[in-house]
Amino acid sequence: MGPRAHESIPSPSRRTTSGTGDGVSEAASPGDLRFIAIERVTPQIDGGRFAIKRIVGDRIDVTADVFREGHDELAARLLYRGPGDASWRTAPCAFVDNDGYAGNFVVDRIGTFAYTIEAWPDEFATWRRDFAKKRAAGGSLEVDVREGRSLVAAAAARARASEGARWRAVSRDLDEATADERTLASALLDDSLALLVALAPDLSRASRYAPELRIDVDRELGRFSAWYEFFPRSQSATPGRHGTLADAARRLPAIAAMGFDIVYLPPIHPIGTAFRKGPNNSPTAGPGDPGSPWAIGNAAGGHTALEPALGTFDDFDLFIKAARKVGLEVALDYALQCSPDHPYVRDHPEWFAFRSDGTLKYAENPPKKYQDIVNFDWFGPAAPELYAELRDVVEFWIARGISVFRVDNPHTKPFAFWDWMIASVRARHPEVLFLAEAFTRPKVLARLAKAGFSQSYTYFTWRNTKEELTAYMLELTRTELAEYHRPNFWPNTPDILPSYLQTGGRAAFRIRLALAATLSSSYGIYSGYEWCENAALPGREEYADSEKYQLRQRDYDEPGTLAPEIARLNAIRRENVALHDWRGVSFYRADDDGVLFFGKHAGGNTILVAVTLDPFVAHDPLLWVPTGEFGFADDEAYAVTELLGGSRHVWRGSPQRWRLDPAVNPVAIFRIAHAR
Amino acid sequence: MGPRAHESIPSPSRRTTSGTGDGVSEAASPGDLRFIAIERVTPQIDGGRFAIKRIVGDRIDVTADVFREGHDELAARLLYRGPGDASWRTAPCAFVDNDGYAGNFVVDRIGTFAYTIEAWPDEFATWRRDFAKKRAAGGSLEVDVREGRSLVAAAAARARASEGARWRAVSRDLDEATADERTLASALLDDSLALLVALAPDLSRASRYAPELRIDVDRELGRFSAWYEFFPRSQSATPGRHGTLADAARRLPAIAAMGFDIVYLPPIHPIGTAFRKGPNNSPTAGPGDPGSPWAIGNAAGGHTALEPALGTFDDFDLFIKAARKVGLEVALDYALQCSPDHPYVRDHPEWFAFRSDGTLKYAENPPKKYQDIVNFDWFGPAAPELYAELRDVVEFWIARGISVFRVDNPHTKPFAFWDWMIASVRARHPEVLFLAEAFTRPKVLARLAKAGFSQSYTYFTWRNTKEELTAYMLELTRTELAEYHRPNFWPNTPDILPSYLQTGGRAAFRIRLALAATLSSSYGIYSGYEWCENAALPGREEYADSEKYQLRQRDYDEPGTLAPEIARLNAIRRENVALHDWRGVSFYRADDDGVLFFGKHAGGNTILVAVTLDPFVAHDPLLWVPTGEFGFADDEAYAVTELLGGSRHVWRGSPQRWRLDPAVNPVAIFRIAHAR
Repeated sequence: MGPRAHESIPSPSRRTTSGTGDGVSEAASPGDLRFIAIERVTPQIDGGRFAIKRIVGDRIDVTADVFREGHDELAARLLYRGPGDASWRTAPCAFVDNDGYAGNFVVDRIGTFAYTIEAWPDEFATWRRDFAKKRAAGGSLEVDVREGRSLVAAAAARARASEGARWRAVSRDLDEATADERTLASALLDDSLALLVALAPDLSRASRYAPELRIDVDRELGRFSAWYEFFPRSQSATPGRHGTLADAARRLPAIAAMGFDIVYLPPIHPIGTAFRKGPNNSPTAGPGDPGSPWAIGNAAGGHTALEPALGTFDDFDLFIKAARKVGLEVALDYALQCSPDHPYVRDHPEWFAFRSDGTLKYAENPPKKYQDIVNFDWFGPAAPELYAELRDVVEFWIARGISVFRVDNPHTKPFAFWDWMIASVRARHPEVLFLAEAFTRPKVLARLAKAGFSQSYTYFTWRNTKEELTAYMLELTRTELAEYHRPNFWPNTPDILPSYLQTGGRAAFRIRLALAATLSSSYGIYSGYEWCENAALPGREEYADSEKYQLRQRDYDEPGTLAPEIARLNAIRRENVALHDWRGVSFYRADDDGVLFFGKHAGGNTILVAVTLDPFVAHDPLLWVPTGEFGFADDEAYAVTELLGGSRHVWRGSPQRWRLDPAVNPVAIFRIAHAR
Repeated sequence: MGPRAHESIPSPSRRTTSGTGDGVSEAASPGDLRFIAIERVTPQIDGGRFAIKRIVGDRIDVTADVFREGHDELAARLLYRGPGDASWRTAPCAFVDNDGYAGNFVVDRIGTFAYTIEAWPDEFATWRRDFAKKRAAGGSLEVDVREGRSLVAAAAARARASEGARWRAVSRDLDEATADERTLASALLDDSLALLVALAPDLSRASRYAPELRIDVDRELGRFSAWYEFFPRSQSATPGRHGTLADAARRLPAIAAMGFDIVYLPPIHPIGTAFRKGPNNSPTAGPGDPGSPWAIGNAAGGHTALEPALGTFDDFDLFIKAARKVGLEVALDYALQCSPDHPYVRDHPEWFAFRSDGTLKYAENPPKKYQDIVNFDWFGPAAPELYAELRDVVEFWIARGISVFRVDNPHTKPFAFWDWMIASVRARHPEVLFLAEAFTRPKVLARLAKAGFSQSYTYFTWRNTKEELTAYMLELTRTELAEYHRPNFWPNTPDILPSYLQTGGRAAFRIRLALAATLSSSYGIYSGYEWCENAALPGREEYADSEKYQLRQRDYDEPGTLAPEIARLNAIRRENVALHDWRGVSFYRADDDGVLFFGKHAGGNTILVAVTLDPFVAHDPLLWVPTGEFGFADDEAYAVTELLGGSRHVWRGSPQRWRLDPAVNPVAIFRIAHAR
């Protein structure tokens, strides 16, 4: 019975790829008979649809299951390429166990890398394995020797010219040994011959994992960053006067002295006058009220203009220069919404939605109305032009020296916009970072991280108890989120003054600051935090007299602010590489439900952190140092430095009593000497 | 700044699919601006590349994350279709929690089903939600009412003619209410109107999950089956005479009486004479030795011929008829290898591999040589014809009344062959089942199950302790394997006589039988088990005087075999639906490391099984009945029947003492009355 003409029968000559990314039903079209199964390639996100995130210098550890029917030996290698690479580079994969293979490579520059796995039958290794067994069993090996020599000859023909000398030596040895079967067999089984043959693999029957997996590689700031948010307009030294960028520039040395990496400015664009909000979100503004900076645009311009009261572009350039001088990067707010006065509304009504009565559709969250804000119509026929314009706003500020953007409410704009815009910008400017203010539902937050946001705000702001913090950190570090979602922990923002800070006094601010700075490798505070400002609207998690609607001038010379403690924490962060990555956290036993005890280890640096979560009463927890994990014998002494206070100790054994007094030292950061 | 001509900017008009199956980098080509994210659709295997397995009547519970930017209400539905369906059928999906949706449908016939998820913005639900809030807040609703009516009108235009009367009534009600805004608002918020609108969804902006996920639906035998393997040639009543199919047919009533569903015959084809093996795998056979049935083919024919000593095709037809008469299906062995005498070797040398000295390449596993066997060359240029031929062998036997195949060593043949062959056969004969003898590495075993094998042999044969059995069952039932790998538990095979059976006496056979029959919904034994045959080759897990190489006639009238116990176990299996599925197993506490205590529940039927794993000494374990899980109050009495012995009990509370004496009752199977 012959093949039926109408059916697709697998062809031995067809060469196809392996893996799940093609979405094709394999049963209907099985492809290459010789295919090697390459499965469960990690890391990968959603079958390769989204990139994982790493920073320059990271080693990418890739694992895969590689197997085929039968008992032939297989070999595998990693293929990878960085931005601009014309062809794949390769790295070997080694067999680990249970059909699993592993290999790695280092991402040596920023931009998008790709990687995948290739596997092939290693005919010489199979021959060698069987030949060694047959030889041990005795009997004629004549045909086997002939087949082995044929495989060696084929490898020699494939070898690179640079290995010519070694191959000539092999050929000479084999020829000389030909007379004596035992000598020849030994020569064919020689380890150095096996290594030489392995350098010239026969890839004609290689299978390749179909999806090309991607890595977005950032500079270190993408993972390790301390942010400080402040309103330039509040920085005038003269009470009641609108601050300027020049005023704000004078604050930069103090911010740098606190050890921050990034100063983030709320929108600095002209602010709408229609329906301008007054203090405390009042629906009517007085003549001197500055309005919310997020109501962007008026006759003076929109997203590419500066609020005239802040100064000119010359002032802006000077501000950037001043920031660079003290080692700070400036992050701008990217808020895709308009005041009704925005020039876009006049020049591009096609970018906005109108109601059936012909009026502009303002933002609302029924029954709340935000009449000072109108949203773009993301789905209108003019969307392509709108998208291009909004991307070009980013390009405009990049040209002005900005390379970090904090994105306002990204979860109310289409995912497809972020997918496209971020890829488009980073293709030209891979150094640019985007922070998503994704205070939204977990799945949406995760999807925005997949879209390419370098970092994201998190639910840390509302995680207070030991159980909550532990569970949340495990979710961030032990699930797939760790591959693409970089958390940025904010204890406060202009929008959020959490209950814990409202009620816990100065200790609460110290506790939340230390948690943010040590649990996460990226964190930020909104100014006022140094003064432990905690006046809220009654029954709300919002600031009273919020700086969003009015100027808030502060006394920078006031003694007793948290500035020195912040500076110490940021210095500890910089000096200890264990704190440069959020993913390495482990939680340890503290015999006290009110005390969080955790640690991180990297590059020979081991840090343990004990924090009381109780801002009112002193605790004396027994902290169980993971001495076994650190490689200490039960009774071995080890040196410990408490970095905040600077005290030095010699500890012995796991349980250690340590007093945490919220009025004095709510936090202890221990560096362990000589831990593995 | 306008769009750059060379770039792909998302288009609002382009309509695309969602999901991970397309393998396309979304960032490079973001697709539809309006797309709704549809993620984590379960069940699915490898992004939809492979089918899940179910049986007729199963309810398929599908879940997915469905979300989009912003706050619009979304709706979702399941699309599914069975074999021959020209278009999708639909089932609603309901919102569950955390952007998760769930829906289900029933697979009502055998064959391959497909399913996926579709989601769309529910504009009327969004309007209704916001309108209700605005109405409660007060103020003018004129524009909102107009927009709501417009959405209702659009739904009416989309509605099916069959709902015309209901729509006319709605229209009348709204028209009458128009004069009074309050009445009109109430009418627009009416629940029945919402339900009516939901029946006419606006699918013009629907997103669809791109992969079409598949389900292979079998008849019940695919999941729930008891197998009995025997050699027809051993069934002669005359000692030393080669048995015939007619002899074998006379055994069928006794096998049916033991309660089996399937009799599985080792190969019944002509056996090679070249290098024929003698008793105990001796390399030389005597003149009367029958040889291994797996050395298929001689001058009398090959895979589509019958061993002449067994009889003719008329005898075969009578055998099938006799089996059907007593309710048994016949499974044939499908062993893709040849004796050197096989007609294929002469007629199709292009289907075999030759060594460099021109000799046929026989099977070997160095240093072992299997000169009575040659393997096909799966990768030669003639592979398409070979594949078609081997598929047609299956078709040949299907035409002869066979619908179950036990496949010998599938892990030494290309996955692509199985992918294609099984799909090809089942497309025409969806009732056909394949059992994989995949005694191989875990990843390879799993891949064969993905290829479409209905059932697979497992590692149960070597899992003896409580820890081993528990861990293995959890692997089979609590991992993705449960979706596509149906275990078939064999305590013995002609190839394997495990140490436990060699040394544990009759109790060991009773214990392993009960474990196989109750842990798994499919199991089988190889004949001889009834007699507790346990003579092994020294130091091996192989039978002495193996039936593979010689006739083994047994005394079917011998008293004291396990036949009555087997019959009782199979009857208990049939009567208790809890035992019809391997996946429902839960393990419970028994205060004895030598006692396994587990349970299953389905369709109101609750079974608990206690098995001593110690074949030598009696145990008196305390069994902790999961009374809480069963919904019993702490002190509530519940009725229990021990099904093997038939005793009835009233128990109260969780811990129950039960003696398991290997000499008497190593196993207890309890049916719990009225458990939830």
